[in-house]
Amino acid sequence: MLPGVGVFGIGSTARVLVPLLKAEGFEVHALWGQSEEEACCLAKELGIPFHTSRSDDVLLHQDVDLVCIYIPPSMTRQIAVKALGIGKNVVCEKAATAIDSFKMVTAARYYPQLLSIMGNTLRFLPAFVAMRQMLLEGYVGEIQVCDVRVYGPSLLDQSYGWTCEELMGGGGLHTVGSAIIDLLSHLTGTRAHRVHGLLRTFVQQNSLIRGIRRVTSDDFCFFQMLMGGTRSSSCGVCCTVTLNFNMPGSFVQEVMVVGSTGRLVARGTELYGQRSGSNVEELLLGDSGWAGPEVKEMPLPHLRGLSSMVKALRQSFQAHEERRSWAQGPVAIAPTFEDGLYVQTVVEAVKRSSWSGEWECVEIMSQEPDPNHNLCEALQRNKN
Amino acid sequence: MLPGVGVFGIGSTARVLVPLLKAEGFEVHALWGQSEEEACCLAKELGIPFHTSRSDDVLLHQDVDLVCIYIPPSMTRQIAVKALGIGKNVVCEKAATAIDSFKMVTAARYYPQLLSIMGNTLRFLPAFVAMRQMLLEGYVGEIQVCDVRVYGPSLLDQSYGWTCEELMGGGGLHTVGSAIIDLLSHLTGTRAHRVHGLLRTFVQQNSLIRGIRRVTSDDFCFFQMLMGGTRSSSCGVCCTVTLNFNMPGSFVQEVMVVGSTGRLVARGTELYGQRSGSNVEELLLGDSGWAGPEVKEMPLPHLRGLSSMVKALRQSFQAHEERRSWAQGPVAIAPTFEDGLYVQTVVEAVKRSSWSGEWECVEIMSQEPDPNHNLCEALQRNKN
Repeated sequence: MLPGVGVFGIGSTARVLVPLLKAEGFEVHALWGQSEEEACCLAKELGIPFHTSRSDDVLLHQDVDLVCIYIPPSMTRQIAVKALGIGKNVVCEKAATAIDSFKMVTAARYYPQLLSIMGNTLRFLPAFVAMRQMLLEGYVGEIQVCDVRVYGPSLLDQSYGWTCEELMGGGGLHTVGSAIIDLLSHLTGTRAHRVHGLLRTFVQQNSLIRGIRRVTSDDFCFFQMLMGGTRSSSCGVCCTVTLNFNMPGSFVQEVMVVGSTGRLVARGTELYGQRSGSNVEELLLGDSGWAGPEVKEMPLPHLRGLSSMVKALRQSFQAHEERRSWAQGPVAIAPTFEDGLYVQTVVEAVKRSSWSGEWECVEIMSQEPDPNHNLCEALQRNKN
Repeated sequence: MLPGVGVFGIGSTARVLVPLLKAEGFEVHALWGQSEEEACCLAKELGIPFHTSRSDDVLLHQDVDLVCIYIPPSMTRQIAVKALGIGKNVVCEKAATAIDSFKMVTAARYYPQLLSIMGNTLRFLPAFVAMRQMLLEGYVGEIQVCDVRVYGPSLLDQSYGWTCEELMGGGGLHTVGSAIIDLLSHLTGTRAHRVHGLLRTFVQQNSLIRGIRRVTSDDFCFFQMLMGGTRSSSCGVCCTVTLNFNMPGSFVQEVMVVGSTGRLVARGTELYGQRSGSNVEELLLGDSGWAGPEVKEMPLPHLRGLSSMVKALRQSFQAHEERRSWAQGPVAIAPTFEDGLYVQTVVEAVKRSSWSGEWECVEIMSQEPDPNHNLCEALQRNKN
């Protein structure tokens, strides 16, 4: 039986998500927005019976068994951890910092019977499902290089807000790069151990953001990841990612994996491949056409990925009688909160590298840093 | 009046160059090859009256006024410097090291009345001539990012040789990357001051190179250059270059320049552009079709660039009555030996960065390092 859903967020993702959930048979019982008016307005538009600006009203709502959190990164951790504590299943967008991600991991570990997955959706895109399968079957041989490009128009909101602020989780690296980092570890089955990166904010002001306000989040980011390669026989995988959001016009996403005997390329939602022996590239998975809603702010690969994830959620919950029970199988490829922590750790290492100019190690946090650490050190110093 | 030409080299470039020279009305009087047999064979094939394996025979040939040097990098400096000393005009492929490049610069400075240009040919490709013009006219606004990809099949020769050896000037960075480094400084009108790079040799052995032999030259290279940006108002230009020669199938070259108000992209020999206001990419310069020779080893952009350079050479020499005199105008965009030294310096900085993992400064050599430096130091140490 399908669980009742509560949705956090009134942005473009939430706006797309609700119709997708309904199309799969989920009932959306409650909507949360930061302001009462915006929540009211969107709830009316989407036909959601209850709306609020108080998070507890959704989390404690008796018909809500699954909470979908699509809100700015700085707010996700708080809601996700609380939702798990109340015993709700959670699908959640990324957090703003590794510490927040770590707190989410701790909560998820504490409630293993609850569903807790990242709302990051490229893994579910059929082209990437097929790509991963073909990589496992050895289509490209040993993986050598992954090369990713994402180009698109500005990611900034119309008005000044978190998208302009690097520390609030804005910018191309955090918003789009994190989905790519997650995808590449999923495709290659390995993780980055060293990264190098360069971030730039080319457009620091525009017609809407001016005066004393300045954009601090990156609109150009370029990073390399060294992955795997622990076996002495292997060089490991070199990943290069270029993100450029100073490109008005259509969104371009190209993910290429090159191996010893061939290559696979996902362009947008289509998958192409070429084996070393062949002179032509073959279309391995075409785009079957998109009948769902079109959203200007949301590129097609993310939109279709989200749609496939909602389908997987339906299958996962459908398998059980009880509203809150779910089956592992259909959502097995979903990124866990642990994956979310890994991604956030890589994002922060790339930012560190951009400041230091050096290769930075990716070290996953294994315990929460003591918030009193600095205080203790100061006391220690005074003692001596 | 057109000068008589002597050609050094029996590789694929020389094989293409001779027909191109003849088509423009140049007479090719002499051909040099490393072995007498190979030189004889190619001279017969191309209808060149004289061939030799002794370089002086070409350099001192009385009908030769222009020497075209298309030989392995480790040998170019010696021939080029000697040719200038004998009073011949020189078109020369890159050297293997910055020290060799510096020696070529010294010779070129000593004989300013002689033509001395690098045989590097992408600058002359009509798409790049048009691109540079449009950049100067402000099509993209302020240049922010250059993004270049070159993909192709292995650059290794059939048998073991200099193409396999990093120290001999083999590898994607030295062979293809240097043409890109030169092109980007030409297009942007500025030079790299810091670089970061990563080189890999994924294929260290193949069916022809095996046993104790191992390829040391890179087949994958990825580097970033920070260029210009000395003005405080400007971020400078970030260039990212990805070279991958583990891609059997056709050659792909894409050079994109992104600016504040638009972008230009050269794909192969065609130029496309999109201004920020527009929703569609426009074809700015199509490929008019190539009637010249097809060469498997030589990608079309290089082939057409070479052809355009030969045309420019003809115009340059045609302007004067005297066989050895030439006009600056038609070859003004050609890379000088000074440009060659800059390119070689960047190549070496990228290699250093790949070893050190750090950003490396590009410092152009201003005087030849003392070959006795180490000896002197040793003597100094003994004294103390």
